[in-house]
Amino acid sequence: MTHTTPHSTTRRNVLRGTVATAALAATAAVPAGAAHAAPTGSGTGPAIGILLYDGFSLLDPTGPAEVLSRLPDATVTMIAERRGPVRTDTADVALVAERSLDEVDRLDVLLVPGAGNRGTVAAMNNQALLSWIRRIHRHTRWTTSVCTGSIVLAAAGLLDGRQATTYWASAEYLESTFDVTYLPQRYVRSGKLITAAGVSAGIDMALYLASLMAGDDTAKAIQLAVEYDPQPPFDSGNATEADARLKERALQLLAASQV
Amino acid sequence: MTHTTPHSTTRRNVLRGTVATAALAATAAVPAGAAHAAPTGSGTGPAIGILLYDGFSLLDPTGPAEVLSRLPDATVTMIAERRGPVRTDTADVALVAERSLDEVDRLDVLLVPGAGNRGTVAAMNNQALLSWIRRIHRHTRWTTSVCTGSIVLAAAGLLDGRQATTYWASAEYLESTFDVTYLPQRYVRSGKLITAAGVSAGIDMALYLASLMAGDDTAKAIQLAVEYDPQPPFDSGNATEADARLKERALQLLAASQV
Repeated sequence: MTHTTPHSTTRRNVLRGTVATAALAATAAVPAGAAHAAPTGSGTGPAIGILLYDGFSLLDPTGPAEVLSRLPDATVTMIAERRGPVRTDTADVALVAERSLDEVDRLDVLLVPGAGNRGTVAAMNNQALLSWIRRIHRHTRWTTSVCTGSIVLAAAGLLDGRQATTYWASAEYLESTFDVTYLPQRYVRSGKLITAAGVSAGIDMALYLASLMAGDDTAKAIQLAVEYDPQPPFDSGNATEADARLKERALQLLAASQV
Repeated sequence: MTHTTPHSTTRRNVLRGTVATAALAATAAVPAGAAHAAPTGSGTGPAIGILLYDGFSLLDPTGPAEVLSRLPDATVTMIAERRGPVRTDTADVALVAERSLDEVDRLDVLLVPGAGNRGTVAAMNNQALLSWIRRIHRHTRWTTSVCTGSIVLAAAGLLDGRQATTYWASAEYLESTFDVTYLPQRYVRSGKLITAAGVSAGIDMALYLASLMAGDDTAKAIQLAVEYDPQPPFDSGNATEADARLKERALQLLAASQV
């Protein structure tokens, strides 16, 4: 059935009926500009900080940020060595770091995203970055990573003797370079450390983290809020089921897209 | 089994063995800075443009950008009314628009993300934005949307008489306001228009689009490259299976997080 009513510019609510009305009433109770203020957490909710560094993979920070920003009263802050744009592995896209490392002393949640080879190696060798990670980690409730972000955590010494996961193509490197046992899981919790597998796994990890921080009901509601009912057109995302040819093609596409 | 070898700063490859070597050899063949040049598509691959506007939802553009940036020789360009940072619905995070509307005449793929109520309504009423969308759409190979981005496409008149999808809570609004038939699917193709459901559905849609543009083998390899083997801790992302209480909680969390 189709309708031909032209849209009215005075109709202001694109969400549904009474449910949306209740939701919008809730919005009105939030002081204007509240989400601008004090992004590193002098508010009432959890202060979530995401560490950006040159060459990060775009979905690693943004998938979890989308999920975790829906936790009640949460603030999500992008952090880097310097404030300003930080470019992804393809260099096509930039996210803005709102705070520099020396402006952030405490976080409830630290998330370290992954990167291509160049970005990961540079982060592993960046002593200022690693030192900041260690310092922040002392007081976090949760220290987390996505993709090769676990290699950066390992380089900071945070994964010694622990179980963890990482990007499928980096598992061998993680195990052979550090005192870490790799588990081929979507996410792995070890104490207050939670590592996620590659790129898109950050979304699954963030929902798990949301459940730990705010309970299952809230995490389930966030999953519905971001309509996360995954139905990819193919079933080729699991490396343990992929043949060598597909793995090689995947890594070639990645490498060719990265600068 | 654990290892205690300290990591060497001279070991430069965090990806695996011979496969990674082949991949890195492929990288070396790409001229340095190639991904910086001509972001709106004077290169050899598809020019993918993503329209940002104030109040967009972070995962809507970034999920598809992660996927589509792995298409051979693709460029992904964030575009907005003006160059510079564009803030999300929570106002916590900003993506950089690399080009303004008047700097972009042609795109192979246009993607319009969704937003919260405020951002969607503002975009629907922004005649400069709608006029640009119509102009670019004339020559695209594919015109796409995520979440309430389909409402913006509808406001531009592109969905008249078509089938489409949108964010679950906006389906009623889409059907009652425009001459559009809503389908509760992850993504819907109608001619060269492809609309995706809410937020995370953009990832599924982008893999489908990748298969249309570069074939199933490449799309499958991209899925592996981003390790998209979704395993959310809950099964609550489908609105047709959610009860009224969960829907209300989801919309309350969304509204409370948005500015």
